Amino acid sequence: MPSYAAPLNHINFVLDEVLGYSQHCQANGSTMLDTTTKGAILEGIASFAEEQLYPLNASGDTQGCSWNDGAVQTPKGYQQAYQQFMTDGWPGLSAPVAQGGQGLPESLGVVITEILGSANPAWYMYTGLTKGATLALEAHGSTELKEHYLPRMYSGQWSGTMCLTEPHCGSDLGLLKTRASLRPDGRYAISGTKIFISAGEHDLTSNIVHLVLARADAAPSGTQGLTLFLVPKWLTDEQGQLRERNAVHCSSIEHKMGMNGSSTCVMNFDGAQGYLVGELNQGLRCMFTMMNHARLTTAMQGLCMGEMAYQTAAAYAKDRLQMRSLKGPQFPELPADPILVHPDVRRMLLTMKALNLGNRALAYYTALQMDVAESSPDPSKQKAASEQLAILTPICKAFITETGIEVTSLGVQVLGGHGYIKEWGQEQLMRDCRIASIYEGTTGIQALDLLGRKVLASQGSLLSGLKQMLQTQIAETQQIPTLATHANRQARLVEAWQTIAQTIALRARDNADEIGAASVDYLMLSGYILHGHFWLKMMRSALAEPTDAPLQQSILHTGEFFFQRLLLRADMHLATLQADATTLMSPLTEHF
Amino acid sequence: MPSYAAPLNHINFVLDEVLGYSQHCQANGSTMLDTTTKGAILEGIASFAEEQLYPLNASGDTQGCSWNDGAVQTPKGYQQAYQQFMTDGWPGLSAPVAQGGQGLPESLGVVITEILGSANPAWYMYTGLTKGATLALEAHGSTELKEHYLPRMYSGQWSGTMCLTEPHCGSDLGLLKTRASLRPDGRYAISGTKIFISAGEHDLTSNIVHLVLARADAAPSGTQGLTLFLVPKWLTDEQGQLRERNAVHCSSIEHKMGMNGSSTCVMNFDGAQGYLVGELNQGLRCMFTMMNHARLTTAMQGLCMGEMAYQTAAAYAKDRLQMRSLKGPQFPELPADPILVHPDVRRMLLTMKALNLGNRALAYYTALQMDVAESSPDPSKQKAASEQLAILTPICKAFITETGIEVTSLGVQVLGGHGYIKEWGQEQLMRDCRIASIYEGTTGIQALDLLGRKVLASQGSLLSGLKQMLQTQIAETQQIPTLATHANRQARLVEAWQTIAQTIALRARDNADEIGAASVDYLMLSGYILHGHFWLKMMRSALAEPTDAPLQQSILHTGEFFFQRLLLRADMHLATLQADATTLMSPLTEHF
Repeated sequence: MPSYAAPLNHINFVLDEVLGYSQHCQANGSTMLDTTTKGAILEGIASFAEEQLYPLNASGDTQGCSWNDGAVQTPKGYQQAYQQFMTDGWPGLSAPVAQGGQGLPESLGVVITEILGSANPAWYMYTGLTKGATLALEAHGSTELKEHYLPRMYSGQWSGTMCLTEPHCGSDLGLLKTRASLRPDGRYAISGTKIFISAGEHDLTSNIVHLVLARADAAPSGTQGLTLFLVPKWLTDEQGQLRERNAVHCSSIEHKMGMNGSSTCVMNFDGAQGYLVGELNQGLRCMFTMMNHARLTTAMQGLCMGEMAYQTAAAYAKDRLQMRSLKGPQFPELPADPILVHPDVRRMLLTMKALNLGNRALAYYTALQMDVAESSPDPSKQKAASEQLAILTPICKAFITETGIEVTSLGVQVLGGHGYIKEWGQEQLMRDCRIASIYEGTTGIQALDLLGRKVLASQGSLLSGLKQMLQTQIAETQQIPTLATHANRQARLVEAWQTIAQTIALRARDNADEIGAASVDYLMLSGYILHGHFWLKMMRSALAEPTDAPLQQSILHTGEFFFQRLLLRADMHLATLQADATTLMSPLTEHF
Repeated sequence: MPSYAAPLNHINFVLDEVLGYSQHCQANGSTMLDTTTKGAILEGIASFAEEQLYPLNASGDTQGCSWNDGAVQTPKGYQQAYQQFMTDGWPGLSAPVAQGGQGLPESLGVVITEILGSANPAWYMYTGLTKGATLALEAHGSTELKEHYLPRMYSGQWSGTMCLTEPHCGSDLGLLKTRASLRPDGRYAISGTKIFISAGEHDLTSNIVHLVLARADAAPSGTQGLTLFLVPKWLTDEQGQLRERNAVHCSSIEHKMGMNGSSTCVMNFDGAQGYLVGELNQGLRCMFTMMNHARLTTAMQGLCMGEMAYQTAAAYAKDRLQMRSLKGPQFPELPADPILVHPDVRRMLLTMKALNLGNRALAYYTALQMDVAESSPDPSKQKAASEQLAILTPICKAFITETGIEVTSLGVQVLGGHGYIKEWGQEQLMRDCRIASIYEGTTGIQALDLLGRKVLASQGSLLSGLKQMLQTQIAETQQIPTLATHANRQARLVEAWQTIAQTIALRARDNADEIGAASVDYLMLSGYILHGHFWLKMMRSALAEPTDAPLQQSILHTGEFFFQRLLLRADMHLATLQADATTLMSPLTEHF
């Protein structure tokens, strides 16, 4: 039966050997986070995840959440695990010290997200959403709101939500209808219906703090008329005691493909009391401050479930005896060979592993840029990191989740029929992972953001830092004989990547649809090129250790696999991008 | 809300315009199946599927099957629909007239499989499995067994199963442990445990006829020692009256990712009375006679659920208003444009449509070869069709199911969050479809069969008929100015496809693992090349009709999309095949 072990060796390899984490922390204001402290924290969170959360993952899926007269019951054991999580002080790890947090860098929070989200992605949603809400509040809330709400959210006592989607608007927030009317006391009365609200109602915390996007009286239509409000489930007194139930209620929960332990709520606001967050009609801007973080957290789900799927599939492939190697019995003493001897099983496992490891390096690197953008003492470094984040965030969100779905599906395939039944957990991972490329902005939305709003709108200038990083890596790796071929390959791809962006820009001058037509292929191409970068980097780090330790050897083998067999996908996306929008746009409505 | 409409226009286009179905039927002994009769049959089955089966698809998924003390209850409505199916005389449509069937060609049964399996894939399993069992019995059963069992199975009164898999053996039947001991009365006592038995127990028919692979006393080990037995749930008298419960029982049913309405049973045989089918130790050969048919039927599931996913996604994309076209409002009178205006939504829909239509043409063509192989008056044509079937069957099974999984996943994505909740049915299609690339031989098994047992073992000679078909098509299409570019492209691919097989053959002489290392990429490459063939053929048929009817126009648009944007996948598989097995086989066990 499957079990989860936090892959601390891989995590530390990326942090320490590949990304120089302890120097990074020194340079960005987290001087106390040395390798020993980080190690202790990760061991602690790993134990909690393995022992408290993972055992609830399958049972939470089976039981799901239940709704009764506005209350939502989470699966058995969720409450206890949440209490333990609070008692251990995990929620406020990367929160500001001023509001009771421990002030560790955001990047460490992302690493912790991997571990918690691998062990139990549905349970993790309750704490993950709170993080998003606190970020928006931190950046835009009044001092009064912050002092009242943030410490209680950082402690885990109260949780948070983001209320954006409505029945008729998901990607298109401009259509949003929820109203906010100014009351004589300066507060607002919020009315409307929100759907797909994760953790909108549950039984883990005494209060729930909704951040709600709504349209104030006489606000302009479209996205320019949106304002952010804080709407608590319970109105509280100055000491934070619950005083009065606010007029916000959960009218039902969704029945979904997966993530059954996470409540997905329809929330009705019936003149609920709300507080302005930020300025009127600046709601979208306020949301965007937390977008990078929320998107990276969501991206992690592709890695989380991909990692868990790989662990189970690799263990199964070593254990399951079925057929002989075509070369003849490899384990003649056994009734059949373990299926790991079969090349196609290895192809699947190595695909999973290569994508997971590339995704981890990409996500962690992106997380480090969040630290730099926020805390570097050097403003030019802050600016450079922000520019990289603008490009990396949509790539992480879409690429890691899309490949995560592929990895979890391969995880089912490796186990054959046993992958399809609930017993082994592989089918749950595929179901749980399938939402990741949808919520927090679909792959299509991320791709438009990347190509339209970032690359083309900046005329490529937002790419310059990343391009330099890629080229430096290539030049250095070309000096290493065993890696030079891969570096040359990567050099050709990076050049083609730049050329194709110019081609698309030219096409888009005449026809704006060219952006949408190219966007997803451009994003996936970018993702594979970034994987190429981090694979070169990881292989160099592995070569730098004069050891034949399994970890280093495994990095080198998997990297070879990546360059010989996976990076070809980049060429396919490049070739697809040669075609313009014509074949997409020619069919009339009746041809579909 | 979604609904299913059998795509009779597309089905008839492929049968009549592309494959010349009525001449085919004339030439292969089904003289009574003219276009009118065929049309009436398909209209009838379409009504049944749309009105009786589709309404049970979502409710059947929610309720699933339930097990109680050995009995299995199917979802509400399944029994009634099954009774109607029998009353209408559908089960015996392509069964021999001698045993009460209607003697129509197998190919028509495959078309009907598409329609029934699209409307309700889980319900269809009960009748689909019976078909497989009757084919094995027809080919290898004694006259006595055939006369007793076949008419009652063709009428739908009794159902059938195939009992192969055991807890420790799925792909590797050589490990099979179920025993068969000869009894003094000449029958056998069957003992053992079978798992993953679809329709092993249910409440739709009065009797269930299990075809069981077992090892007779003193039989050799491995696959050479397997024998096929018929083991009825109820022992019956000569009139077919149920007399005594046989010692075969369902001890539990599986909880699965999907196909919840289809019972997947653990079957215990405790000295159950069984009858020999075929000769002792020839069980595997007996199974193989029905393998082509069973694999094509399973392949159809990729098309069935892909078609249903496309219908829902296309309807949703025309209806859902979200954002404006990047070119500016296309429907200024509406609050937003339908999402069909967005190029990336079209990319997803056209990918779905192109794969579905290519899969339908490929599957139907293969079905026609079954007719020829069975019924052609010309033995050389029979032989040629059998050779094509040997190649086409594993390709259909793996390629159509793999692409079907992709199509259903895209179907979720087009609907965004609404694709992930149960309400719209898209997530169910993805769950239901996921098993198709696993059972009846996984993709890896099909790929080994194709490359190892068929292409390489015959030194390419089994390919000759198909190669000629591809080349003739190319030569003819090169004469059509608007299609010449595509035909030239296809010509280069076909040449490369032949070359790469020779390359692999050379490598495999030194290292048998080269076969497994190349197998899945070779199979997928073959699938895309066959799609290329059928797209040329479909586009030619569409051009031959001097009309701008939506169907013909849609074929031409989708074909252009296929050649410009999808066929590039063939190049990627080709490029992958340039790498040998080294990167797959180098990692040691501890590196996984």
